[in-house]
Amino acid sequence: MISKNQIKNITRLKQKKYRQQDGLFIAEGRKVIEEFLNSTFKLVDLFTTETFDVDQEVIISENDLKKISCLTTPNKALAVFKIPEDLSLQSDGLILALDSVRDPGNLGTIIRLCDWFGVDQLVCSQETVDCYNPKVVQATMGSLTRVAIHYVDLESYLQKVDLPVFGAFMEGKDVYKSKMPKSGVLVLGNEANGISKAIEVCVTDKISIPRFGALQATESLNVATAGAILLSEFRRG
Amino acid sequence: MISKNQIKNITRLKQKKYRQQDGLFIAEGRKVIEEFLNSTFKLVDLFTTETFDVDQEVIISENDLKKISCLTTPNKALAVFKIPEDLSLQSDGLILALDSVRDPGNLGTIIRLCDWFGVDQLVCSQETVDCYNPKVVQATMGSLTRVAIHYVDLESYLQKVDLPVFGAFMEGKDVYKSKMPKSGVLVLGNEANGISKAIEVCVTDKISIPRFGALQATESLNVATAGAILLSEFRRG
Repeated sequence: MISKNQIKNITRLKQKKYRQQDGLFIAEGRKVIEEFLNSTFKLVDLFTTETFDVDQEVIISENDLKKISCLTTPNKALAVFKIPEDLSLQSDGLILALDSVRDPGNLGTIIRLCDWFGVDQLVCSQETVDCYNPKVVQATMGSLTRVAIHYVDLESYLQKVDLPVFGAFMEGKDVYKSKMPKSGVLVLGNEANGISKAIEVCVTDKISIPRFGALQATESLNVATAGAILLSEFRRG
Repeated sequence: MISKNQIKNITRLKQKKYRQQDGLFIAEGRKVIEEFLNSTFKLVDLFTTETFDVDQEVIISENDLKKISCLTTPNKALAVFKIPEDLSLQSDGLILALDSVRDPGNLGTIIRLCDWFGVDQLVCSQETVDCYNPKVVQATMGSLTRVAIHYVDLESYLQKVDLPVFGAFMEGKDVYKSKMPKSGVLVLGNEANGISKAIEVCVTDKISIPRFGALQATESLNVATAGAILLSEFRRG
């Protein structure tokens, strides 16, 4: 059973304002929830149609799950976890920085990429979509438990950081012909506008992904696929 | 003005069955429509709230556009184009093959990748989402005009093709340490299940993208990001 008050407290977490106020976020589906249960994230509530063998779990009906789920097709369970405190930002190794990435699916894919390529620091501008947005949480497939995400004033962060700052620009140096360092910040820009003028000033090394084909008419790659290619170039050595 | 009958004829194109029956598809938004107008695709209808200076155009109200649009926020214009006839499949150069990619956004991103990397042949299994699905058309950003897409029985195509067939598998050869040929077929698998057993048998060269980081817990990359990294490896030389 789930009370009206509980329904209200959960559904309000779909909004960033309340997630920040309550310090809580939603994860759905057995696989994603289990990734969080097996991490340092603190479980607050677990509503499920089938048992997880977890003390806090409350078995509810499919119908009740529908009332709290953010998914069009609810997936057996919904859990509420605490948003962890922001850990101190390290400044060595490879760091990924996002300048206003707005699409939750793109952010989720980028968090999975960080996890794959062992990038454990992701720095986001304040305008970047919230990583505890339910769509982002679902798209990360659990990678959110292994990547530390920081929301900062990106411009002042990049001004202070003692590392080379890389960004992709049409006129940049061919990334296939450049040796990428082990430490540095790689900046990815907004879906429609790329890297903003204010952030471009902070970029110390402009790079580019060569374009092939006779027509050369494609305007750009999707931010997540560009990120995939660039992270791969940093890691392949 | 747009008639009731026209509205009916356009909205039915949201379904694959009617797109195939009528041989027509929908494109929306000035930028995407212009890419099709500047290509070999044949325009059938153009309904727009602002002029394109095109003979066939019909100026309609925002309200009428809402009635025919597939977008949550209609974007000034909707055009109907003819689905081109299937061109004969070439069998040299780099060819990308999709084994049941189901998500329209992923297919759109993959078509953009083909365009970027000069892959002009994309071969899809019959189970792959239709490339004239409105969500795919929008996600391609016009790249659909520059990539030839074929829907085939993928298994029999791969059995007959006279090229090495590459596929990503956990146990495959490190792609960073392998020299990729100029000609070959690269197969990408389904979002949830990867490459199917029937198609795996046709793969002559298993490759893998190395995973980094201490935990090595990420299960997989998104199909479009994996495709981005692999196409980049084929092209970087």
